Amino acid sequence: MPAVPPQLLDDTFLSDPPKSLVLDAGFRFHHGEVIAPFTIVYETFGELNAAKSNAILVCHALSPGAHVAGKYSEADARPGWWDGLVGYGKGIDLTDHFVVCVNFPGSPWGTTAPRSIDPASGKAYGSRYPWVTVEDMVESQRLVLDHLGIEKLRAVAGASLGGMEALMWAALHPERIGAAICLAGAASVPVASVAWHLIGRKLVQSDPAFQGGDYYGSTDSLRGLQLARMVGHMTYLSDEALEAKFGRKRRGGTRQFEVDSYLEHQAQKFAAAYDANSYIRVQAAMDEMDLEERFGSLDAAFAKLSAKVLLISFDTDWLFPTAELVRIQHAMRRAGVDATHLEIGTPNGHDAFLVDYPLITPPIRDFLTAYSRSTQTSEPTTVTR
Amino acid sequence: MPAVPPQLLDDTFLSDPPKSLVLDAGFRFHHGEVIAPFTIVYETFGELNAAKSNAILVCHALSPGAHVAGKYSEADARPGWWDGLVGYGKGIDLTDHFVVCVNFPGSPWGTTAPRSIDPASGKAYGSRYPWVTVEDMVESQRLVLDHLGIEKLRAVAGASLGGMEALMWAALHPERIGAAICLAGAASVPVASVAWHLIGRKLVQSDPAFQGGDYYGSTDSLRGLQLARMVGHMTYLSDEALEAKFGRKRRGGTRQFEVDSYLEHQAQKFAAAYDANSYIRVQAAMDEMDLEERFGSLDAAFAKLSAKVLLISFDTDWLFPTAELVRIQHAMRRAGVDATHLEIGTPNGHDAFLVDYPLITPPIRDFLTAYSRSTQTSEPTTVTR
Repeated sequence: MPAVPPQLLDDTFLSDPPKSLVLDAGFRFHHGEVIAPFTIVYETFGELNAAKSNAILVCHALSPGAHVAGKYSEADARPGWWDGLVGYGKGIDLTDHFVVCVNFPGSPWGTTAPRSIDPASGKAYGSRYPWVTVEDMVESQRLVLDHLGIEKLRAVAGASLGGMEALMWAALHPERIGAAICLAGAASVPVASVAWHLIGRKLVQSDPAFQGGDYYGSTDSLRGLQLARMVGHMTYLSDEALEAKFGRKRRGGTRQFEVDSYLEHQAQKFAAAYDANSYIRVQAAMDEMDLEERFGSLDAAFAKLSAKVLLISFDTDWLFPTAELVRIQHAMRRAGVDATHLEIGTPNGHDAFLVDYPLITPPIRDFLTAYSRSTQTSEPTTVTR
Repeated sequence: MPAVPPQLLDDTFLSDPPKSLVLDAGFRFHHGEVIAPFTIVYETFGELNAAKSNAILVCHALSPGAHVAGKYSEADARPGWWDGLVGYGKGIDLTDHFVVCVNFPGSPWGTTAPRSIDPASGKAYGSRYPWVTVEDMVESQRLVLDHLGIEKLRAVAGASLGGMEALMWAALHPERIGAAICLAGAASVPVASVAWHLIGRKLVQSDPAFQGGDYYGSTDSLRGLQLARMVGHMTYLSDEALEAKFGRKRRGGTRQFEVDSYLEHQAQKFAAAYDANSYIRVQAAMDEMDLEERFGSLDAAFAKLSAKVLLISFDTDWLFPTAELVRIQHAMRRAGVDATHLEIGTPNGHDAFLVDYPLITPPIRDFLTAYSRSTQTSEPTTVTR
């Protein structure tokens, strides 16, 4: 039970404002660069227990930030990005778990980012902002957990790039996680998806208005970023979903395809809020991650892991296909890890992790319940005595 | 047997130079515009028999022109675009058949095109060139056949957009075709593929150097067209083919993915030769074609068709998937048409029609042989008497 009961709203709750961890000595990126000072923005949901043993780190993906669930105020139009899964009585139940989410370096949502002002120059970092890695994302999360005094996570969970971060945790800090949940993730992005990502980055970088990354103040929204988002958006959808939602329908009285107007609208909305330098950096970080390359083999990457693992794939996800999750599961099994893989049938493609809550909630809830129970019996607490 | 035996080269033959049909009164486009005078470029291969009954119209797709097979001279680096299928002793055997291919309006390979000079202004047609339709493509082919005195085709054959043209022939001029062969084609482009096409057109049109289509003389190669080609290229490939060919391999000594350098190279080569105005027009024509919309139903589109039909799809083709060919076959069967559908298993995606000659040759040869035999027995000739 939380110490202070949350204020519940219709289907969600009032969440705390974002918190900041300011690193005066700066953040050292995996490739060696340092930005100082450096601010890491994070959010927490629910209550950390006295033993600090009920924390779940939720890792965000390319587009969103640390605002996982809830609304800052009742007036908010929409709750956090994974509100369908995280909340009181939901799949990741805040009645039991304390959730932490860290806006990682490179992402534009609060943490020092390419569009942040460099106090030394008074200008945005822009092209001088380092090329981030998934290791940097994990490091920023580790710094926040250390700051909160959380030594061991009950679980690390994420989808898409968030799932890749969860796997990086499993490889880099196996002793600090009790369980890992990876939805539609990868130990390395398959080549077809790398190619779509590459094309997206070329679209941004080929826009003359991008100016090598130092476009701040000169443009509100880059067409190149809109176009990259359209390509990205397509990779998140399945042909089935497009067929069901749009087919070859035209906009009333015109020859414009409905799917055209939909992609334009979504892309323009995205590009007006997101930042092009962040987009190309975060996506490049995905493509660079390769646990097999880094550890010699995927088995070796998970050699020290004793966490229980739940892997979920979606049958119509062609960006991070089931075959990649199967590859991960097999490597984990060979490494002696208790890893379960579940393929969920859905027409919603890669986006299923943001849509199919009725499908992803039961396996995640059951996995966390079983895991929590197993630790309660093996690690006696005052409650059971 | 051809009247004049062809000069055979290693695995191909010396082909005749392109021919021109000049329409002094101009070409009237489906949407009403007229360009006069108008030149239609075409090529022929093999010999037309005295009865003019052995002609096969090969319809080309987006990228190539009328040069289907053979080399103009021994010094040519490469033969025509379907040389693997069309030739002496090949799948479409020039010993038996006379092949015609017409460079359709909109395409930049000889026929009056957006980059052609308008004699009235002394400048390229550019943005003033009409938006072409598949009907226009068929009409240009019909004009050439009339010019050659060919009343009835033994067969019409094509792949991809060429397959769409073959289906348009089946719907518009059913009495003029004895057989139709459609590989990886469609009666209407499925919405996911429409979306990829739309994105490609946006990439061209969003390039400031495109200048609304009047860029001639100001630039050698548009980055927007290169980027559109990369997207297009991806839709022609399968994930399996990319995995087998590149995987996550890097270029020696660098972090650049091999697939990156491959896509860049191919796109730059394409954009240096092709024309952006042609690209967006020909692709838009594909998306606009919809036999169901035009005829009320797909069954109605094929109601007057008595030709035998061979439909071939490729299991890894996600641009023009098997489901579309199945839909066409079912409609044809309901309309009483003798339509066979064959799905070929291949890792080569949409590109299979340009790659998998050992797989496509036997069914096409067998189909043409069986069809030719059936017409010889039902239509007695001096040879059999």
